[in-house]
Amino acid sequence: MANTEIGMTDGSGSGYNHILLAHGGGGKLTFELIQGVVEKLGNPWLAPLRDSAVIKFEGTDISLAFTTDSYVVKPIFFPGGDIGRLSVSGTINDLVSVGATPKFISLSLIIEEGFPLNALERIIESIKAVANETGIAVVTGDIKVVERGKADEIFINTSGIGIFHFPFSPSVMIGDKVIVTGYIGDHGIAVLLARENLGIEVNVKSDVAPLNWVLELLEKNGLEFHCLKDPTRGGLGGALVEIAQSFGIGIVIEEAHIPVRKEVKAVCEILGLDILNVANEGKLIIITPDYVAEEVLARIKEHPAGKDAALIGEVVKEPEGKVLINTVIGSKRIVDMPYGEELPRIC
Amino acid sequence: MANTEIGMTDGSGSGYNHILLAHGGGGKLTFELIQGVVEKLGNPWLAPLRDSAVIKFEGTDISLAFTTDSYVVKPIFFPGGDIGRLSVSGTINDLVSVGATPKFISLSLIIEEGFPLNALERIIESIKAVANETGIAVVTGDIKVVERGKADEIFINTSGIGIFHFPFSPSVMIGDKVIVTGYIGDHGIAVLLARENLGIEVNVKSDVAPLNWVLELLEKNGLEFHCLKDPTRGGLGGALVEIAQSFGIGIVIEEAHIPVRKEVKAVCEILGLDILNVANEGKLIIITPDYVAEEVLARIKEHPAGKDAALIGEVVKEPEGKVLINTVIGSKRIVDMPYGEELPRIC
Repeated sequence: MANTEIGMTDGSGSGYNHILLAHGGGGKLTFELIQGVVEKLGNPWLAPLRDSAVIKFEGTDISLAFTTDSYVVKPIFFPGGDIGRLSVSGTINDLVSVGATPKFISLSLIIEEGFPLNALERIIESIKAVANETGIAVVTGDIKVVERGKADEIFINTSGIGIFHFPFSPSVMIGDKVIVTGYIGDHGIAVLLARENLGIEVNVKSDVAPLNWVLELLEKNGLEFHCLKDPTRGGLGGALVEIAQSFGIGIVIEEAHIPVRKEVKAVCEILGLDILNVANEGKLIIITPDYVAEEVLARIKEHPAGKDAALIGEVVKEPEGKVLINTVIGSKRIVDMPYGEELPRIC
Repeated sequence: MANTEIGMTDGSGSGYNHILLAHGGGGKLTFELIQGVVEKLGNPWLAPLRDSAVIKFEGTDISLAFTTDSYVVKPIFFPGGDIGRLSVSGTINDLVSVGATPKFISLSLIIEEGFPLNALERIIESIKAVANETGIAVVTGDIKVVERGKADEIFINTSGIGIFHFPFSPSVMIGDKVIVTGYIGDHGIAVLLARENLGIEVNVKSDVAPLNWVLELLEKNGLEFHCLKDPTRGGLGGALVEIAQSFGIGIVIEEAHIPVRKEVKAVCEILGLDILNVANEGKLIIITPDYVAEEVLARIKEHPAGKDAALIGEVVKEPEGKVLINTVIGSKRIVDMPYGEELPRIC
């Protein structure tokens, strides 16, 4: 085949016919590749490109969310967590992002021959800890083994089923407020520093954590929300751009209000990384109606995992499909979706 | 840690502390590893070690099956199929094996950098073909990319949700008959010949196919069945031993009645493989009450995909937990569960 249909161009006009590492980065290229596959599969289920599929059972009031993610993070153990905690938390968070209460998780391991059994045990312990913490059970699983050099230690797939306690369709309105549940960028920087020998000695831990508490808190207190999203690959910036594009609205955020640890900010400055594109694994973006935003923020801040939450911006009419940031030095700039693999294998 | 808890011994008394390729073979070692992980996770969901978890929604008559499988088959394209067809069919078949009608599939890809986009397209086409063939939709997905040399072309995880049309709990009774829906061993031999340069020139195609038609046929005709199982890794022998052990009954099979293509038989003889341990990906074992066995067989044989089905044996009281084969030369032997990796990366 001379012409391929999936991901024929990298947007720069230069065609390619192989998978690039950048296809996995959570940016434009990832989006383009996913879109190519989705178009090829050609079914209406996939068109919304949501974090989870929503399944309604006709004739009943049962509605489920179904999601899947494979985890290839490197290193598999990093400050603040490991691939086990990451994989279960990530799938829980994808369910929460569509407004579903996570209930059941599947666990599938691809293990490289020679992988130490005690490392496997640590990972399983870590999965069990998240399960105990959240009351969400691993209910089914699979294990495959490949030859030495044909995988990288261990890859984990977790899929998940969540239940909707009430019907929820994400929507975004002009005037809505944007809340983030805590410090951004911790996961990406912690993994990067654990992987690369950069000679930077700072104490940054991944924020990897299940976020079902956020949805529980909102539901329990009857707090209205319009949209939830976990800013993983592509970071806070990528997630907000996705929301702005999906709903055809603009989002303005205030740099001064975005919670970033000074260590994380310093590492980003040293390495020339845009903090807005650094992955998080334990933070949620909440878009709420204006009238309830302060109360949502207050309630989130009462929770130990949400004490550093902040109201960082609002939804505006224009620029349509774009995110604008008011910087601390008083300038404005458009926040772009990252192009490709700023930080490979972060999740 | 000097002592690991998962899979501390290989049964031969010689301990090990790393994952062996044999852990992925679908035999005793796989079983032991899975059991170790399940015990560590320590929740009642996993204890039955079924192909799918069964989820009941209290206060409704909705009951679902949930399953997951990762596919690492090598080569990814083989006579009769590819990793795309295999992954979707395999998950469909795991749902069918617990008596659930497959409905929704998730698709998660781990792709090695440099993988050709046109190969990805062929795989996606192949997945779409199974979806169209069965009416089962891919409803959610994920794509990850790893560096060159950190995976082997492409690994696919598919998870699936099925619906129970009526309550079903597998059971096995003395006197039940054992039916297999067609020729065994085609998949394992086709993949093996496609992978290894053995200088054997025979035309064997994988049987990889979705098996939802079997359940539909049984349900539509109101034919009673006690147990279903797809004999994948570990083969017909491994699957029957698993059934015998789970239910504490014996199974006697007649070698003369087991459908095997002569080419497949010949390859097994040349390579010293036990056909009973060679993987299938489009066959189902059906255990039915005696009174309906002939009718089930007749109906299965009417279907194009079931025309080579056969009644191969029956359930007996003893030897408890064991499978006995009456060979064509008139001897009897115990069928053993394979130990480890007779044929690695077959699925």
